Amino acid sequence: MASKAYDKLGTLQRQTMLLGSVNELVHWDQETLMPSGGAKLRSEQCALLSGLIHERSTSKEIGELIEQCAGEEIPKDSIEFANIREWRRDYERERKLPREHVEELSRTRSIAQQAWQKARKESDFSIFAPHLEKMVDLTRKSAKYYGWAEGGEPYDALLEGYEPGATAAQIEKIFQPLRTRLTALIHDIANSGVRPDTTIHTTEVPKAQQEAFVRFAASAIGFRFENGRLDVSAHPFCSGLGPGDCRMTTRFHANNVMDALSSTMHESGHGIYEQNLNKEAFGTPCGSAVSLGIHESQSRGWENIVGRSRAFWEWCLPHAKDLMPELMAEQTIDSVYAAQNIVEPTYIRVEADEATYNLHIMLRFELERALIRGDLSTKDVPREWNKRFKDYLGIEVDKDSNGCLQDVHWSFGLMGYFPTYTLGNLYACQFFEAAREQLGDLDAMFREGEFETLRKWLTENIHQHGRRYSADELCQRITSKPLSADPLMRHLEGKLRPLYGLA
Amino acid sequence: MASKAYDKLGTLQRQTMLLGSVNELVHWDQETLMPSGGAKLRSEQCALLSGLIHERSTSKEIGELIEQCAGEEIPKDSIEFANIREWRRDYERERKLPREHVEELSRTRSIAQQAWQKARKESDFSIFAPHLEKMVDLTRKSAKYYGWAEGGEPYDALLEGYEPGATAAQIEKIFQPLRTRLTALIHDIANSGVRPDTTIHTTEVPKAQQEAFVRFAASAIGFRFENGRLDVSAHPFCSGLGPGDCRMTTRFHANNVMDALSSTMHESGHGIYEQNLNKEAFGTPCGSAVSLGIHESQSRGWENIVGRSRAFWEWCLPHAKDLMPELMAEQTIDSVYAAQNIVEPTYIRVEADEATYNLHIMLRFELERALIRGDLSTKDVPREWNKRFKDYLGIEVDKDSNGCLQDVHWSFGLMGYFPTYTLGNLYACQFFEAAREQLGDLDAMFREGEFETLRKWLTENIHQHGRRYSADELCQRITSKPLSADPLMRHLEGKLRPLYGLA
Repeated sequence: MASKAYDKLGTLQRQTMLLGSVNELVHWDQETLMPSGGAKLRSEQCALLSGLIHERSTSKEIGELIEQCAGEEIPKDSIEFANIREWRRDYERERKLPREHVEELSRTRSIAQQAWQKARKESDFSIFAPHLEKMVDLTRKSAKYYGWAEGGEPYDALLEGYEPGATAAQIEKIFQPLRTRLTALIHDIANSGVRPDTTIHTTEVPKAQQEAFVRFAASAIGFRFENGRLDVSAHPFCSGLGPGDCRMTTRFHANNVMDALSSTMHESGHGIYEQNLNKEAFGTPCGSAVSLGIHESQSRGWENIVGRSRAFWEWCLPHAKDLMPELMAEQTIDSVYAAQNIVEPTYIRVEADEATYNLHIMLRFELERALIRGDLSTKDVPREWNKRFKDYLGIEVDKDSNGCLQDVHWSFGLMGYFPTYTLGNLYACQFFEAAREQLGDLDAMFREGEFETLRKWLTENIHQHGRRYSADELCQRITSKPLSADPLMRHLEGKLRPLYGLA
Repeated sequence: MASKAYDKLGTLQRQTMLLGSVNELVHWDQETLMPSGGAKLRSEQCALLSGLIHERSTSKEIGELIEQCAGEEIPKDSIEFANIREWRRDYERERKLPREHVEELSRTRSIAQQAWQKARKESDFSIFAPHLEKMVDLTRKSAKYYGWAEGGEPYDALLEGYEPGATAAQIEKIFQPLRTRLTALIHDIANSGVRPDTTIHTTEVPKAQQEAFVRFAASAIGFRFENGRLDVSAHPFCSGLGPGDCRMTTRFHANNVMDALSSTMHESGHGIYEQNLNKEAFGTPCGSAVSLGIHESQSRGWENIVGRSRAFWEWCLPHAKDLMPELMAEQTIDSVYAAQNIVEPTYIRVEADEATYNLHIMLRFELERALIRGDLSTKDVPREWNKRFKDYLGIEVDKDSNGCLQDVHWSFGLMGYFPTYTLGNLYACQFFEAAREQLGDLDAMFREGEFETLRKWLTENIHQHGRRYSADELCQRITSKPLSADPLMRHLEGKLRPLYGLA
């Protein structure tokens, strides 16, 4: 039975979570619907809400309640224990940055972001360089305030904000063999001489048809529209406001419905995670997603492992033909499957395929880690970027807007964030291997449009636990192994080598 | 120069206003886009926000700052003086209801509203009667807590919440002659034998055409879409979130584009008021709308005085023909003008025409005033409703769902609200007469699609003052007269008698 202090803490934290969900809604509106003239008002609303949320979650009262709860006898394997552990973790972390530092970060961020926009537009790194330098300095300071475990490094302190428990050293240990094996695979594909037909990626499809198709797919794999929405934004995202209301977005290009499909499958994966969190636990850590990497494992799993599988298309193609007859008239399972699995090195991360994508991430991980360590100076970023890009992907970067200026992250000080994308791919493949072992022939189910068995397994094993177990523990519980590069490589090699006629 | 206390008060109140604008956005989303599954979460979000807003606006600190400001030497004709006066008014009123009473109101409301929905659906007053009785009791208690001026009556205390400064006696003095004159006019029209062609109200128009048309009209009269939105909801409304962001809604029936036009013109009138408040004064009373009656004068003015004028249609018809060629092919200025000014007694207030509408309001005003005074018992409401309905509108109410069960207001305890609708019509006509005197031939401008001169005049005389002057003072300043029934009757008689071939 929960104590009085625990109940009180739960009530206060639930209120703060409700304010957080309002803040999420307000951000969602900003990205989807807000009229341009509303920007100034909106920034004031958001600043006020963020301030209130920060104030509430770092209040002395919360700290005292956490200490009271921690002093009580609570079984270590209980949900209450996990909630108190996570509340304490959040509380301690949130209080570590002094107010002046947070304010300086916020000011610098908004100036740096503007400079980055200009720099990218003009493909001129020198415009962004001084702001990047300032941002790196501040982020290194943040790392110092947060602190890191003995034997670790400052980058760990940043990682902790996105992937609790992960360290740079662990990540490197997985990334290094992955890089070697990926570059080899990509090299083989480039030299295979096989070039799939790309008609499907360059043919115009009316927006209404595209929308009907992607909504059909999202619904089929388990996104519940009575508890959510799909809208349009420049950069697709998913926002789980709370029980019963999850908002995701996609984008439509006149001539590439497969882009809309991929981004919708991706966001649906995030959405299915959010929709299947434990509703009763809303407002507590055990009712919230565990980490960015695990969240990304859900989006990548549905987008890539399901959505780019042959079995998925065996089921989906007739529906696609119904909903988009002109586009699909000439397409066969073979042609769509091949087109959905084209591997080709390109400059832009967000447009990269399932295999090359991870090399984009590793390059960023290596550079930002070096920046935070102090081993790389900002002025050397373009040179170092381009050198590695050539090494890993085999192409010369033609201009910085296609290179180190392409992502918004660093201008926000989001360092330690990038690796979670590849962690997501790794977790996805390792989880799905376990699912196949435990559930039997998943492909046979996909062929029938049966996704509910998989969805339920993910809910039981991942979604419903929230933050009860760390990402590491979750991986160990589900797969009986620590995270490794093997499942991802097995997935890619197993799919891509036959498609490209490779041994 | 403003004092330190005044600045501090302004900062705190602006924050509270920002939270209020977030609450408005959250409500807007609920009515327009929220998935059905989000209802429970949303009600918790709204309750929390409302609680925070109430807490902030009734805090001891606010009270002390108001007292400090009131003790300072501030010129009586300054904006600061008006702000302090209105802040004090709000503060004192907000603090008058004890917390237990507010909570009981809130509980009773949600139960009463559910009972009302069932009662209306089944047209069975007995289902609603006990809840209405409870709601009337609680509302009478609210009136006692609020208090009223000597010589007044409890209903005044309720009116004060919607139309500050208005009293039941004043309203009665205007409504009484209005009722006599309106019933006579409506009687004459019914006996005129003239029946305009209603094809335009019963012909199907594709939704896309309807939307293009109403957006065109809203934009033409001055609603700025870069600072606002038009969406769809079951009951059209307008929500001015703050500078640069005003959200209005409309509804589309397949076979009645004129309903969508009227509701869009109406909400645009509210929207134009909100969009032309003094932006710099956001967060202060002088940056907020003065009363419901004045707000309604803007919506009714644009909807009825402009939108149902012959001059408007001389300009609008060619555009309507462009945008809705099939519907408009056979229509002439005469036919549209006549169809837009059909007067015919009907049961439902929200579907009533410009003339009969006010009789619907008076009936409600009389009944709710009697309920609050204690002169009418709830069980007699249907009988009294039907009797007056026959007297004023000449038709027998066939069932309570077409009579006293049609409106949601009483189930919420919204008593004292209804008269502001007719006050709006009265203010609109009196203001527009003054505008015609001061600006010259408004019709000549409308014929050219020139609405900016009128809009600017409304902004200068009404919008920009916010709550600086009371509704009464505003009326006196603009028209040099107190509010009277004459301008509304001149407007209706002048338009309707010729249309119906009456002397």
